[in-house]
Amino acid sequence: MTSPSKATLDPTRNAALDLIRAHESFLLIGHVRPDGDCVGSQGALARVLTSLGKKVVILNPDHPGDVFDYLYAELPYRVDDGGPLPEHEVVVLLDINELSRTGALASKVEAYGSKKLVIDHHPAHGEPWWDACYMDVTASATGVLVWRIAEQLGVKPDSVLAHAVFTSLVTDTGWFRYSNTDAETMAIASRLVDLGVRPAEVFRSLHQRNAADQPKAIAETLGRVEYFGDGRLAVVDHPLTPASGIKLEESDTVLDILRAVKDVEVVLYLREVDKGICKLSARSKSSYDVNRLARQFGGGGHVKASGATIRGKLAETRERLVQAALGEFTAQA
Amino acid sequence: MTSPSKATLDPTRNAALDLIRAHESFLLIGHVRPDGDCVGSQGALARVLTSLGKKVVILNPDHPGDVFDYLYAELPYRVDDGGPLPEHEVVVLLDINELSRTGALASKVEAYGSKKLVIDHHPAHGEPWWDACYMDVTASATGVLVWRIAEQLGVKPDSVLAHAVFTSLVTDTGWFRYSNTDAETMAIASRLVDLGVRPAEVFRSLHQRNAADQPKAIAETLGRVEYFGDGRLAVVDHPLTPASGIKLEESDTVLDILRAVKDVEVVLYLREVDKGICKLSARSKSSYDVNRLARQFGGGGHVKASGATIRGKLAETRERLVQAALGEFTAQA
Repeated sequence: MTSPSKATLDPTRNAALDLIRAHESFLLIGHVRPDGDCVGSQGALARVLTSLGKKVVILNPDHPGDVFDYLYAELPYRVDDGGPLPEHEVVVLLDINELSRTGALASKVEAYGSKKLVIDHHPAHGEPWWDACYMDVTASATGVLVWRIAEQLGVKPDSVLAHAVFTSLVTDTGWFRYSNTDAETMAIASRLVDLGVRPAEVFRSLHQRNAADQPKAIAETLGRVEYFGDGRLAVVDHPLTPASGIKLEESDTVLDILRAVKDVEVVLYLREVDKGICKLSARSKSSYDVNRLARQFGGGGHVKASGATIRGKLAETRERLVQAALGEFTAQA
Repeated sequence: MTSPSKATLDPTRNAALDLIRAHESFLLIGHVRPDGDCVGSQGALARVLTSLGKKVVILNPDHPGDVFDYLYAELPYRVDDGGPLPEHEVVVLLDINELSRTGALASKVEAYGSKKLVIDHHPAHGEPWWDACYMDVTASATGVLVWRIAEQLGVKPDSVLAHAVFTSLVTDTGWFRYSNTDAETMAIASRLVDLGVRPAEVFRSLHQRNAADQPKAIAETLGRVEYFGDGRLAVVDHPLTPASGIKLEESDTVLDILRAVKDVEVVLYLREVDKGICKLSARSKSSYDVNRLARQFGGGGHVKASGATIRGKLAETRERLVQAALGEFTAQA
C-alpha cells in the first residue's frame, strides 16, 4: 500500500470507525522512544474513547519523558514493565504501521490475538496485517487523524484532547515551520487554542526545561562545525565524553542553527552514543533525500529527516559519512 | 487612550474605513528599522488599496533588509532618500502610533498636512493627534488589523496579501510561540496557507539565510553565558571586535537558547555596538517586567521584551545592569 489518497481510503477509514464503535476496551501502543506525535495522538484517542464510555490504557515501550507531563495527569499513560498486557479487545498502533517498531510489546501483542487497528500518517510497505486502518500520508501528524476521528465519531473536544492534539501538531510540523504545515493543521490549531491551549505554555513545557549547562554544551558542539561540498554540507560530531553533556533533545537546536546557514542544504549530526556506536541525525532543507543516505548506513526515515545507528569509531564513521553524503550530491543531481 | 476594547473602538474603526473609502492616494509609512509586522502590514494594506483601485506608495525611514525580498517584487516599497514625500491625500502609520518613531519622515509628514490614519496594536499614550485610527491592543499583530480591514472593505485576498499578513503574524508571535498567539491568529494563518503561503518557504526566507560563520559566532557568544540570582538571570555580552561577527538577527537565537534553560526567567544580552556604546536586549519568560529594567537605562519596550542603548564601557555597564536586574527581582517580588 503506497500513498493512499483521502478519496481511495474512505471505505477503509469507515471500517476503522466501525471497529472503534463496536468495541469497549482498547490498548493504545506506540513506538520505542515515543515522540510528541506518538504521545499526543495516543492521549487524544484515549480522550475520544473515554468520552464514548470505553475503557482505555496507553502503553509505551519507553517512558516518553517529563516534557509531556502536562498530559500525564489527565490521561492513562503507562510504560511497559515487562508484565502481561492489560485486558483489551482492540489494540491500536498510533504513528507507526509496523508492529516491530513497538519493541518488546510486539511479541506480546501478536500472542494476545486482539483486533488490530492502525492510525498513522507514514507510508506503509508490504501487505496489510491489521484488521482496520485509518491512514493518510498527506496528514501533517497522526494527531490530525485522531482529530478527524473525534469529529467523525461526534465527540465534543475538550481542553485535554486539545492539548494532546496540539502536542502532535507542533512536534511533527516543527512548530508550524516544516513543509507539511497545511491549512488543515493551522485550522485545527486555531480550534485547539479556542479550546484552551496556550501555545506559550506548551512551548515552555516542551522546549524550555533545559539544564543550565546546555547553552555551553550547544556552543561546544556548534563550535566544531565543518563544511564540505562548497558549503552545502554541514557536519558536527560529538564524542562520547561525560563532560560534553549535550542532551539528545538539544540536537534539534544544533541542527536548526546549521540549517539556518544560507548555503547549507544538508546537515549531519553524528554522536558517539556508546563505545564504537554512533548515532546519525541527517536533515535536508533542499530536494536532497537524506533517507537515501541513511539507508546506506542501515537507517532510514523521511526525505528531509532521517537517522541511523552505525557501528564504528567516530572519526572513521564520520569520514565514511561525509564521502557518502558528497556522493549523494552527485547521484541525486 | 489606553487599551481600547473591540467594542468601544468600533465607531472609531468605522471612521477609519470611511477615511480609506473616501480617498484615492495613500502613503504608508513605518518606523525606523522596520520589522516584519511593520513591513507585512504595510504590504498587506498596499494590496488592499490597489485592489480598490487606489494609488499607494510605501515609504520607510530605513531599508527593512533582504529577508523580506519575497514581498518586494509585487509591492511598492520605497526607502526615504531625503527627498520630498510622494503626493498623497492620506498618510497611514502602521505598527506605531507616535509620529516621532518614523525618524526623519516625521517633520515632512507634519509639514505636508495630509489626513493622518493610524493602524496599530500598541497602546497609545497622550491625546489623539490623528484624523482616524484603527487600533486594537488585543490583536497579536498589526497585520491582523489589516486582515480585518480587508474583510470589512470587501477585498478578496490573494497570495500577495497573504504573504504580507503571514510575515506580520510570524514576526510578532515568535512564529506562533508567544503568549499573544490566539485563535484568531491561527485561523487567519490557516486562510493564508489556503491562499498559497508555504510556511517552510517563508521560514527559509526569514530565518535561513545566515553566513557560514554564524554558527561559530553564536557558539562563541553562548559560551560566555553567566548566571546570577540562583540561575534566574542569564547574561551574555559581546565586545566590539570585528572577529566576533554575530549578526544582530542572530541575537534572537542566542536569547532563545538561554530562555530554554528551565530556571532562567530573565535574559540580558549586552553588545558593544560602538566605542563606549552598548545595546541591551532584555527578555523575560516569567512575570518579571523587563520594561521596568530597561527604563532605568533610558530604554523601554514591552513587559517581556525590552531594550536600551546605554553609554558606558562594556564591563562596567554589564556590572550596573546585573545589579539593577537583581534589584528588580526583589522590587518586583
